[in-house]
Amino acid sequence: MKEQHLFYAPEIATTHALNGDDAAHALRVLRMKEGDELWATDGRGTFYEGTALPGGSGKHPECFVDIRHTTTWQRPWRSDIHLAVAPTKNIDRIEWMMEKATEVGLDAFHLLCCANSERRVVKTERLEKIVVSAMKQSHKALKPSIGELTDFRKFIAQPFEGDKFIAHCYCQSDIGDGEKAFLFDVVRPDVPTLVLIGPEGDFSIDEVKAAEAAGFRSISLGESRLRTETAALTAVVHTYLRKTWEPNSAANR
Amino acid sequence: MKEQHLFYAPEIATTHALNGDDAAHALRVLRMKEGDELWATDGRGTFYEGTALPGGSGKHPECFVDIRHTTTWQRPWRSDIHLAVAPTKNIDRIEWMMEKATEVGLDAFHLLCCANSERRVVKTERLEKIVVSAMKQSHKALKPSIGELTDFRKFIAQPFEGDKFIAHCYCQSDIGDGEKAFLFDVVRPDVPTLVLIGPEGDFSIDEVKAAEAAGFRSISLGESRLRTETAALTAVVHTYLRKTWEPNSAANR
Repeated sequence: MKEQHLFYAPEIATTHALNGDDAAHALRVLRMKEGDELWATDGRGTFYEGTALPGGSGKHPECFVDIRHTTTWQRPWRSDIHLAVAPTKNIDRIEWMMEKATEVGLDAFHLLCCANSERRVVKTERLEKIVVSAMKQSHKALKPSIGELTDFRKFIAQPFEGDKFIAHCYCQSDIGDGEKAFLFDVVRPDVPTLVLIGPEGDFSIDEVKAAEAAGFRSISLGESRLRTETAALTAVVHTYLRKTWEPNSAANR
Repeated sequence: MKEQHLFYAPEIATTHALNGDDAAHALRVLRMKEGDELWATDGRGTFYEGTALPGGSGKHPECFVDIRHTTTWQRPWRSDIHLAVAPTKNIDRIEWMMEKATEVGLDAFHLLCCANSERRVVKTERLEKIVVSAMKQSHKALKPSIGELTDFRKFIAQPFEGDKFIAHCYCQSDIGDGEKAFLFDVVRPDVPTLVLIGPEGDFSIDEVKAAEAAGFRSISLGESRLRTETAALTAVVHTYLRKTWEPNSAANR
């Protein structure tokens, strides 16, 4: 099956050109010539269709785009999906989760530094590349944003317009009043959702209490015991499903 | 958070002992002594609690188990979940999917060799190790089985007592009559489910037609364009959710 290549050109609206790496890929790998059809996105919701206009020199290839048509992408999910996760000690595990979560669909990743975090430094440039690649591969016109690694307590104090959830493994009686909900039961299709996922050693009880005090609701992802990255991806799949699913409707197909 | 180690001892009911690798791990890595508490599963639904009885020589450590208590594990999902997938060219992608799917929960993996398969050989011993490790890590007492790589047409001719689905990217009008269902709408909680996921180039139209003729129903996993391994894991998460979810019930928590 021949696959159409999607370029990421965040400045295309003003430059009418691909960026360096994408220009090199277009001209050297795909060997595009003047007039070849080209498909790009700005990563902010718009697809651009046009034809290639190669330029520049051998060392500095440039690829301009003769834009013929723009379309606004309607993302399938009905309201924002934000995931905040404490990066794992082995960064590969977070990288693949971010790749997969981008394929499924979400708006923003946030990286948390928690009491039990074994990893306190993250190179977001590499994560950006992975997310851009997954966006291209899954033909989306929205690039999820990636926030810098942020201290847990600072993060939960930030405003978020929507429903805020924290996934953890404690019994709710260890935390305080109320009961733990099942995420899929409480995600609202039309209200933005933020889910926090803890590090390998889970959040501390104090962190969970602080999050509840800041308006987060404790949730469970089910009975299975999941690693950090598996819990994060499961949370995205459940949230995405809730925000796209219309029971027994043709819209699901 | 200190984590209890789960050993995999498929023959424990008759041998009252751990196998070679697990015995070496217990004695050399965990430095278990006689009388230390030990927790194992046979991978067929039973947990064994007891104490360690080290034996053997330096080169051939043995670890017997003084079994005090056995418990039958009640898996959270209400009926069998079978996934049949065409392995990806890059086997790492299938390995992580199998690790994650085992953490979430399923009963059996089947490996398919399809018209568009780029990979026609798979070492199942390595996949076995990954699945065993994920079963231990997620504290399950059921080891998913892994079938040998099987020709697609041979596989779809085999009997399966339950609902059979095939995920593909074709428009249903290219295949024949009927309409494509959304997997989450059609999984039945109390009836075993088998889902087929195709290779990187998708199933061929002829394969989809043959599957439908053999009683498989065409399904979609939603609007997102997913890689083989992401589609496979999404299918397991959706099926598991359908077989464990009771809307707004305390049983979800």
